[in-house]
Amino acid sequence: MTGKYNLNKLFAAYAAGDRLALSRLITHIENYSDDYELLIEKLFGFLRNTPRIGITGPPGVGKSSLVTEIVQGFRVEEKIIGIIAIDPSSPFTGGALLGDRIRMNRISLDAGVYIRSLATRGSLGGLALATEDVADLMDGFGCDLIIIETVGVGQVELDIVKTADTTIVVLSPESGDSVQAMKAGLMEIGDIFVLNKCDRNGADRAFIEIETALTHRPSGEWKPPIVKTSVQSREGLENLHQAIVSHLEFLSSDGRIDNKHFDRRALKIRRLVESTILHKYWQEDKLAKLEELSRQNISTVSAAKLLIGDS
Amino acid sequence: MTGKYNLNKLFAAYAAGDRLALSRLITHIENYSDDYELLIEKLFGFLRNTPRIGITGPPGVGKSSLVTEIVQGFRVEEKIIGIIAIDPSSPFTGGALLGDRIRMNRISLDAGVYIRSLATRGSLGGLALATEDVADLMDGFGCDLIIIETVGVGQVELDIVKTADTTIVVLSPESGDSVQAMKAGLMEIGDIFVLNKCDRNGADRAFIEIETALTHRPSGEWKPPIVKTSVQSREGLENLHQAIVSHLEFLSSDGRIDNKHFDRRALKIRRLVESTILHKYWQEDKLAKLEELSRQNISTVSAAKLLIGDS
Repeated sequence: MTGKYNLNKLFAAYAAGDRLALSRLITHIENYSDDYELLIEKLFGFLRNTPRIGITGPPGVGKSSLVTEIVQGFRVEEKIIGIIAIDPSSPFTGGALLGDRIRMNRISLDAGVYIRSLATRGSLGGLALATEDVADLMDGFGCDLIIIETVGVGQVELDIVKTADTTIVVLSPESGDSVQAMKAGLMEIGDIFVLNKCDRNGADRAFIEIETALTHRPSGEWKPPIVKTSVQSREGLENLHQAIVSHLEFLSSDGRIDNKHFDRRALKIRRLVESTILHKYWQEDKLAKLEELSRQNISTVSAAKLLIGDS
Repeated sequence: MTGKYNLNKLFAAYAAGDRLALSRLITHIENYSDDYELLIEKLFGFLRNTPRIGITGPPGVGKSSLVTEIVQGFRVEEKIIGIIAIDPSSPFTGGALLGDRIRMNRISLDAGVYIRSLATRGSLGGLALATEDVADLMDGFGCDLIIIETVGVGQVELDIVKTADTTIVVLSPESGDSVQAMKAGLMEIGDIFVLNKCDRNGADRAFIEIETALTHRPSGEWKPPIVKTSVQSREGLENLHQAIVSHLEFLSSDGRIDNKHFDRRALKIRRLVESTILHKYWQEDKLAKLEELSRQNISTVSAAKLLIGDS
């Protein structure tokens, strides 16, 4: 895209509240355009440390529907909301699938809601860095709350979601969700647990399973609530809203949210430094040497040493 | 563990076929012990490029049961099998959960099968590197086939599984599995697709969905088959075995498996180099500087530049 646009102009449009400019800047981040650093630098003065909510859980528990409800709860208070869907999907499906769009349809037509799917591959620093940057873009654009939702529950996705200020883990009574959750390491990262589809069979049992799993967690100053919800019967949606508000209030006291913010910045700086170092390292000659060494009859450790010694 | 054992002795026991020695060496890899490099160096001479099969799919499709069947299919041929379950589970659940052990019980008592769950966190290079090393340990130990199974379908897990020689994607007719699969990027990494639980409702529809999704995939020399299986009715298990054998035969022709092997080595060398570079970089002073910069009123990009300039 370089040459076809002017970052200053685009950024001015963004700063003036132009939705399309926000969207185009997000694309710059995804593509890691040449002017990435300039963009981040410009953006810095606009950051307001908007609270970030991460939402995760196994496929099929109803995360997208629940996000729609959470958003509407905050829209009543006229909050501007940004939503990032972490969706490392296949390149040939091209980002978010139709299903999500349909499910989120009600809110996607709302001018106070910005939705973006992120499926970045191969960008410098990867998905985690891109998510941080897009959240910053939404922050600087004037969002009052940013929601980061994952599709999968892999290691990268959890690493992203747990850096949010408030992490919500959504489960359902369906067979083995709580066991899957424990396996995926979800039980330790949630600030709020949601038992969605609580009108389904097995909800009481699932509730006890979650409660039991949480007793293994080291106790801290915040005791994670388990909120039962049903989008269909509208049960517990107000409780979930309250739980989010309570956790954000908890974070605001004693500078906890500032520490979270600094930790997130430290992680991002670290990722930028590492990307830069590795990018500088892997020049043509090193890549050729790597290729050559991979075909030689020596151990990987010896090959790595030869490469590093060769610098 | 350093000091309490002697790597030479332990390795000699491993080389002599001692199961406990294999298990202890895997623990060394997981803990990234001091003698990691020495171990990899010793191991190199024992590597035989045993074929590796990666198995992934959404939670609940019956991967573990299917692995049991695949293993038994190869056990008939008296092949020695190594199984690595990639399970980035919560530290407080401590690796693989009881469920898997029970489901895999039949094969876990078989002296020709080695099962290990990997939940490595924080090891240098992370889960991907640890998986490669453990597969190498099983290879050198004399396994004829190594099966790598993931619990989750996140980015890291898929990156691991797709480096296998043969990647099997397991789906089931349950609601939305194929949509979830497309979302998770599974459709592009499979060499063999399995529609498990094919005796359940919706199997025909799911089969067509998978078929349709695959038409979007660029066609290559290998056309990924879709194999319908049911562990309960034992339908298609022989077909799956045949599909695996066919794919491994396909790889053996024209040196494809050698190229896969070299690519995997290159990736591993690359990860070792990067781990070493970053490990060297993040000394106390750099970490202190990072902490300090994260709390200053400058952009993350500026902070990263200051850190790098400071080296």
